[in-house]
Amino acid sequence: MSEFDLINHFFKSTTVNRADVLLGIGDDCAILSPPDNKKLAVSTDTLISGVHFPESASAEDIGYKSLAVNLSDLAAMGAEPAWVSLAISLPEANKVWLKNFISGFNELAEKFNVALIGGDTTQGPLSVTINVTGFVDPDKALKRSNASPGDFIFVTGDIGDAHLGLKSILNDNFNNRLTNQQISYCEKKLNRPQPRFDAGNQLKTFSASAIDISDGLLADLSHICKASNVGAVLNIDKIPVSDALLNYYQDKPDWHSVLTAGDDYELCFTCPKSQSFEMQKIMKENNVTVSCIGEISENTEIICKLNNQKLDFEQTGYNHF
Amino acid sequence: MSEFDLINHFFKSTTVNRADVLLGIGDDCAILSPPDNKKLAVSTDTLISGVHFPESASAEDIGYKSLAVNLSDLAAMGAEPAWVSLAISLPEANKVWLKNFISGFNELAEKFNVALIGGDTTQGPLSVTINVTGFVDPDKALKRSNASPGDFIFVTGDIGDAHLGLKSILNDNFNNRLTNQQISYCEKKLNRPQPRFDAGNQLKTFSASAIDISDGLLADLSHICKASNVGAVLNIDKIPVSDALLNYYQDKPDWHSVLTAGDDYELCFTCPKSQSFEMQKIMKENNVTVSCIGEISENTEIICKLNNQKLDFEQTGYNHF
Repeated sequence: MSEFDLINHFFKSTTVNRADVLLGIGDDCAILSPPDNKKLAVSTDTLISGVHFPESASAEDIGYKSLAVNLSDLAAMGAEPAWVSLAISLPEANKVWLKNFISGFNELAEKFNVALIGGDTTQGPLSVTINVTGFVDPDKALKRSNASPGDFIFVTGDIGDAHLGLKSILNDNFNNRLTNQQISYCEKKLNRPQPRFDAGNQLKTFSASAIDISDGLLADLSHICKASNVGAVLNIDKIPVSDALLNYYQDKPDWHSVLTAGDDYELCFTCPKSQSFEMQKIMKENNVTVSCIGEISENTEIICKLNNQKLDFEQTGYNHF
Repeated sequence: MSEFDLINHFFKSTTVNRADVLLGIGDDCAILSPPDNKKLAVSTDTLISGVHFPESASAEDIGYKSLAVNLSDLAAMGAEPAWVSLAISLPEANKVWLKNFISGFNELAEKFNVALIGGDTTQGPLSVTINVTGFVDPDKALKRSNASPGDFIFVTGDIGDAHLGLKSILNDNFNNRLTNQQISYCEKKLNRPQPRFDAGNQLKTFSASAIDISDGLLADLSHICKASNVGAVLNIDKIPVSDALLNYYQDKPDWHSVLTAGDDYELCFTCPKSQSFEMQKIMKENNVTVSCIGEISENTEIICKLNNQKLDFEQTGYNHF
């Protein structure tokens, strides 16, 4: 099967049609019509087998996750998703694998109305590179540089479950500390992260900065601090964790692991104190769980406190090299 | 060195700044301001070491070619280049390699005023995926579906030299048939193809269809024919070839090789007979060499003729699988 047949068969089987896609897959370029009153938000991420997803991951989960981690960047900017380009490198032209990959990809693309507008398939070790474009009002973008001393620091959802999911897949012996349901929940957090548009959309009306937690809470928060030229005091014991994680650590979480494990794709964001009550109220009305875990400081270091005692943590997340 | 340091060091060392890039590399997304009166043209291509460039290719040439083949898609659509996202997969964080890669990339980016707006570096076998965006007037886009029976078929420049360059690099014994200057010319055609914006820009005012020759003239022309639901009669002996190619084949070109060899990145395009004289005049005024090599037919097959004799050629180009 030739490259062209592959593209025609599988890339064209995506199901989202948008009126702003004037010419889709099949020519030298796609032609797109951006909205008059918005700017574009664009992000690119590569996922490599064995690095960004387990080698044992199903084609459907890889398709889902590849799109999810890219959309997550749009959510962290407060952007509305629109278009996606997809480049896949595959060891062989495996029809069944591609069909399942596109099926997982489509499931998420349909949920957020994202149209596939370009693609390339090449022969090589399994990897996926995705480029997403969304629409944003630049005055309301959740830039990393928006944090100010005194702002509260929040996270959405629970932190650390994706890492437990990875432990499970890598055959960690859970010694019956987790129920099958909890194991399945953690593996789903790893393989099918949810881009937090629910939170990003609401945050746009506040003076917020945001980042998605891909490399670990501490590493990602440090990007906000660096871009805003500020520091942070983090109350470790306020970091929200699931019952599954508490069970795994027998109620004494390994905070270093929770702080440095990536792949949760929750949002870490800041909000001025004066707007925090209103922000939390609106999040609650929209069923988005957020937790206050610290405060931005003037000093440019990140201080971690456990029960008000200062701790030393290496300020690093997942290091790709 | 961490992923972030790599991105900061090398991706930020690109030198093209554009007023329509409101927020560049360093946040979750770039923020871009599209022009009011244009649509967007978008294309994605992956280049894999040993497939799309020789394993021996220099980092500078890889940087140049990766951008060139993507910009070539914009040229083939009649679009004006603007923004580029770059995802590199590297076996190791090699500073010297990255510096040279970005140097080759910048050389071309500066030539066409393309701003790097996003990047991702991952550890893995060497590959480059690029996403380019340009501006286009959709009424003037050089769509593959624009060809009509009776249109003349043209190509820019000479065909087949990039393939000779590959032969040279793979240690083909040229038996002194080519001068060192000719060998160097052919290798440059392979490693540093020129996106034909000079031709694409002029073609916009005509009822033209166009494609860039990446997979071979016959394969790429067949994409125009398929999209336009037409066929073609190709006069093989009218295909423009260089003195280097004539020397290599001792004045008897291997036309099958010329028709199926890819990587020239010249444009193959169609133009109505009634507009061809004017088009050729304008091309000449702009120092763009174009050659008429055949005519679009109603019948949906591609017929190849040599000295008015019909030939049989397998209608295929480079097959990635």
